[in-house]
Amino acid sequence: MRKSISSVQNTFIKQLVLLKEKSRQRKKSGQFLIEGKRELSLAIKGGYTIESLLFYPDLFSESEAEAMSSYNIDIIEISKDVFQKLAHRDTTEGVIAVVNSKIHTLENLKLTSKNPLILVAEAPEKPGNIGALLRTADAANVDAIIIANPKSDLYNPNIIRSSVGCVFTTEIAMTTSEEAIVFLKKYNFNIFSAILQESEPYYTQNYILPTAIVVGTEATGLSEQWREAATKNISIPMQGEIDSMNVSVAAGILIFEAKRQRNFL
Amino acid sequence: MRKSISSVQNTFIKQLVLLKEKSRQRKKSGQFLIEGKRELSLAIKGGYTIESLLFYPDLFSESEAEAMSSYNIDIIEISKDVFQKLAHRDTTEGVIAVVNSKIHTLENLKLTSKNPLILVAEAPEKPGNIGALLRTADAANVDAIIIANPKSDLYNPNIIRSSVGCVFTTEIAMTTSEEAIVFLKKYNFNIFSAILQESEPYYTQNYILPTAIVVGTEATGLSEQWREAATKNISIPMQGEIDSMNVSVAAGILIFEAKRQRNFL
Repeated sequence: MRKSISSVQNTFIKQLVLLKEKSRQRKKSGQFLIEGKRELSLAIKGGYTIESLLFYPDLFSESEAEAMSSYNIDIIEISKDVFQKLAHRDTTEGVIAVVNSKIHTLENLKLTSKNPLILVAEAPEKPGNIGALLRTADAANVDAIIIANPKSDLYNPNIIRSSVGCVFTTEIAMTTSEEAIVFLKKYNFNIFSAILQESEPYYTQNYILPTAIVVGTEATGLSEQWREAATKNISIPMQGEIDSMNVSVAAGILIFEAKRQRNFL
Repeated sequence: MRKSISSVQNTFIKQLVLLKEKSRQRKKSGQFLIEGKRELSLAIKGGYTIESLLFYPDLFSESEAEAMSSYNIDIIEISKDVFQKLAHRDTTEGVIAVVNSKIHTLENLKLTSKNPLILVAEAPEKPGNIGALLRTADAANVDAIIIANPKSDLYNPNIIRSSVGCVFTTEIAMTTSEEAIVFLKKYNFNIFSAILQESEPYYTQNYILPTAIVVGTEATGLSEQWREAATKNISIPMQGEIDSMNVSVAAGILIFEAKRQRNFL
């Protein structure tokens, strides 16, 4: 029998509101919400498993809901009130899914290239920047992105939104900077730490071998351990009045210089 | 005699609130507000003239105010209430200036390089993206940025803020796409329009001669006239699941490939 929920006071719906709003709830339950067709498609493509699929029939049809689901998924029709309570965005597509988180450990990373290219972002803060980093990682088809010393959980609705679903398309590990360095050294990565002081211009370096490009925050840069761990410290020449760029722009420039040297293979 | 204003009901202060909030008021008066030390320093360096300088003495000293000003500037001490009414940011530095706008026409652009490099952004929408574009333009020391078919005025507080003052450090023209194309052709620029369809990979092109790199919006891309006007349409290979990048990241990758080819001279 098809389920349907019309009250925002429903216990299950209240749990989902917590899932939307509270990082702690996402961690505790191992679940999070996805909103929107494209994001959901990318998550399915990325191997995420859907637990429940909620749809508001004025915006999303039952046949669409069934097309997006598979066996053993709860498909739940919801009222306008419930939909608005759960929806994060102003304009939406009538579909919200409860999805199981992945385990983002270094051990779980699937690195299949002979010479992997990895982007490491230390302690990125703004969801908009994290989203842009994930979009760059997707576009460049990097082998993985490592978020070192993360400041937020990955399934924050603002991150999902600003990544336009790219949070689901790239291999991601969340770990400490210390463990990331151990991992990268163990697998013989050349580590290029983006640090302004005492560094080489980025375009003089060779990114053909297994490469990790490491960027820090705009406010404080990378922590000292990345300077020490680096094969080379690299920088983008700053020829204007200020000495910093948007972190996602800087990462884009560095990653695509590596791609260029690799002939985009 | 030193002026001082303590009431948020003061007529002058009410005008400044309008200046902060209303694009129309900024256009009408030819003035806008700048907040923060760094932004103000960059504006002075960029040749902007200050009309009045307001400071809240608990956060900014009178001697600092005088150091930042020159003759014929009103220096006005304001109360906490007035400061909070005018301040755009959560954390601030106690200083707000009323500054005269510049005229951002193509004719006013000062292009002194033999082979100028210009970034053109058509109809950029989000202040955060415009800010990041301006920061990239500053870092790369491009000769100018042209904002074609602008959607907002340049002195929107969110643009000033997200540009961290780089809105004052680069030559900027605001115009229509049509006039920008006429201008670029008149001065023999090679026009590289970033367009995904029927385009060449960006890294196969030569950006040594006078170069304009043109980017559109993430939602709709560039308007058709830029495809027609282009010396070459170029694109960044998209090797992931999605077919768009953040516009400021894409602009950064293209501009810095041009800089690399020019040996950062």
